[in-house]
Amino acid sequence: MTGDLLIRSVRPWPNAPGAPVVDVLCEGGRVAAFGRDLDPPPDVPVADGRGGVLLPAFTDAHAHLDSTRLGLPFRPHSAGEGLAELIDNDRRNWRSAGASVAERATHTLGRTIAFGATHVRSHAQVDVDSGLEKLEGVLAARQEHAGRAHVEVVAFPQCGILREKGTADLLDAALRAGADLVGGLDPAGYDRDPVRHLDVVFGLAEKHQRGVDVHLHDAGTLGAFQVELICERVAALGMWGQVTISHAFALSTVDDQRQGELVERLAEHDIAVTTVAPGVRDPLPLRRLRWAGVRVGLGQDGIRDYWSPYGDGDMLDRAWQLAYRNGFRRDELVEMCVDIATRGGAAVMGRVLGLTEGAPADLVVVPGDTVTGAVMDRAPRTLVVHEGRVVACDGQVV
Amino acid sequence: MTGDLLIRSVRPWPNAPGAPVVDVLCEGGRVAAFGRDLDPPPDVPVADGRGGVLLPAFTDAHAHLDSTRLGLPFRPHSAGEGLAELIDNDRRNWRSAGASVAERATHTLGRTIAFGATHVRSHAQVDVDSGLEKLEGVLAARQEHAGRAHVEVVAFPQCGILREKGTADLLDAALRAGADLVGGLDPAGYDRDPVRHLDVVFGLAEKHQRGVDVHLHDAGTLGAFQVELICERVAALGMWGQVTISHAFALSTVDDQRQGELVERLAEHDIAVTTVAPGVRDPLPLRRLRWAGVRVGLGQDGIRDYWSPYGDGDMLDRAWQLAYRNGFRRDELVEMCVDIATRGGAAVMGRVLGLTEGAPADLVVVPGDTVTGAVMDRAPRTLVVHEGRVVACDGQVV
Ligand SMILES: [Zn+2]
Ligand SMILES: [Zn+2]
Repeated sequence: MTGDLLIRSVRPWPNAPGAPVVDVLCEGGRVAAFGRDLDPPPDVPVADGRGGVLLPAFTDAHAHLDSTRLGLPFRPHSAGEGLAELIDNDRRNWRSAGASVAERATHTLGRTIAFGATHVRSHAQVDVDSGLEKLEGVLAARQEHAGRAHVEVVAFPQCGILREKGTADLLDAALRAGADLVGGLDPAGYDRDPVRHLDVVFGLAEKHQRGVDVHLHDAGTLGAFQVELICERVAALGMWGQVTISHAFALSTVDDQRQGELVERLAEHDIAVTTVAPGVRDPLPLRRLRWAGVRVGLGQDGIRDYWSPYGDGDMLDRAWQLAYRNGFRRDELVEMCVDIATRGGAAVMGRVLGLTEGAPADLVVVPGDTVTGAVMDRAPRTLVVHEGRVVACDGQVV
Repeated sequence: MTGDLLIRSVRPWPNAPGAPVVDVLCEGGRVAAFGRDLDPPPDVPVADGRGGVLLPAFTDAHAHLDSTRLGLPFRPHSAGEGLAELIDNDRRNWRSAGASVAERATHTLGRTIAFGATHVRSHAQVDVDSGLEKLEGVLAARQEHAGRAHVEVVAFPQCGILREKGTADLLDAALRAGADLVGGLDPAGYDRDPVRHLDVVFGLAEKHQRGVDVHLHDAGTLGAFQVELICERVAALGMWGQVTISHAFALSTVDDQRQGELVERLAEHDIAVTTVAPGVRDPLPLRRLRWAGVRVGLGQDGIRDYWSPYGDGDMLDRAWQLAYRNGFRRDELVEMCVDIATRGGAAVMGRVLGLTEGAPADLVVVPGDTVTGAVMDRAPRTLVVHEGRVVACDGQVV
């Protein structure tokens, strides 16, 4: 499925203002050469970057493709306050969406690709109400876009594991049905028994030899305690590099010293962290995490669903949001957000992206003077390339 | 300069999903009638709303058109940390922008109009370095777009009043040269003498019979003290309804009881407040302010300038930002942000906008299923109407 491609006229990051444009040759799905006025080998397709900024493709490291309503008529938000009410609101309404999970996930994954992401980790709700229907919908969307993006699916116990009998068995079935990772949700704050919840999650991970991605909204010392519980299980099972904590609000709600200790623990256990650049909760300590070597990814979370009206598939807009929410003005800090939204998220998924020769030819071309200028413009993507093949052009999947 | 116009096929806010489209007749620059399949009077131009959502036009209640570099090559941010360094960075660089203040302000005001704002209050820096050059640039932009937008200009002492000899005289000259309001900047925190600073500001306001708009970043009890000083001057000079506090971080950095007292004081003195939906500082207590009857407006602040790379002229995007930053999910709260971005800001400028018969025909048509859906989509504006004339179409000024 990999391809050869010559991309004409791009300015690879880091690109000083006014830096000359170059061509990029991709061979066998990998970046093979940068150069001026490269000759395309025979039969190699040529795509025009029109002088845009060349970046590694975006990664949406935390999406919920199973619940999206993007592309359907806008539906007023009908949930009350609090996580339980949001869960219940979704359960009351998802079956009447007017399109199947597979159709909705396929549409939104297509938009996400068109906006330049070729790596996506999507959670798929597994619970006694929906069984494996949502998971299967996301797996179908992945299949529909096979060749356009690399998609990981998390079997996600959105309604807890211990609250509703049968959920652990469903998670087990989900992993047999094609889920790549097993998820978790606020083991203490929502499921009320952090040790038993995490034992189920890590038990399934060990049984199926899969990774783990736990939603952890629990803040302060309760959240920090659960970060420690996760670290203990990573060490016991030898799961360094295979576990992600999503949201991780604990990190931004403890004091500075405790934050430093938690960041160190995450680094020691090679546990990744994802954020969705929330509007109200304090941002994660991005610089501290990265200095410590912790992999940090960015995601969209829900995309116009029963949970929230926000999100549209655009990871460049989300990178803008991350920068804005952190008050970053200097270009190197805005570019750090782009790095989190591209290579950072891919690293969370265990993939190495970059703009060096030999790197996977997963690339995006964005109009703009500089990387930061492109983030501020948020213009439609000129080209999106996955494994050396053009998968989207001028904002539309091809 | 006012016009007659028939706008076909729009769905006026509040618009239930699936509500029928109507036509809007504007006469003499005002909304004259809503109805289905209205017949245009002879010689009245007809514009097609294509079924979009009809809103009052946007108001940018706090812009800095004098410093914008929108449309010029993207320039890396070169300032260090802190207000003094930001001021200095601007002073070091603005003369080498490559285009005059008038050209830059004209471009960005045009973009702001194209995005649907027909009311703009812009600050214009007045200081010993630039004299009245920046003010004159903004006045020229206003002249260039006369007939497309109502623009107020604030003579803004960006470098303080007391720190550099001659600034008070320059402010006086600015008011004679056409500035509509006199500004101020952190009377205590930056200019180090709140009473004397405010006495100059309000003295000039009284002398020229103009309104006041003070930047007040000072937070906590120091900011609250200055809110009180401003209230005292409003009462002493009978300036109810003519004074605005911009940013007003004091409101979100004092305890709940003190916040309630300050909001009451603002309401009693009919002092308006503007916010720019900052990314890091806590949001203003929007609902509390509005329940108390305080006029609240939204603005862009600097627009891609020597201060910050953010901002692009789009007040709908800024309304999104306000909603996101407040964690609003429910439609009525997102719509409150739209109200702040449209009628709210106009009220700050002493103008009444709305969608009732007799209201000024300052209108915007936005593609979308509902108001909240339109905020989330942030699609190019179908039509922008000022005083009954189409001033922009499909995202471009006409
Ligand atoms: Zn999530
Ligand atoms: Zn300002």
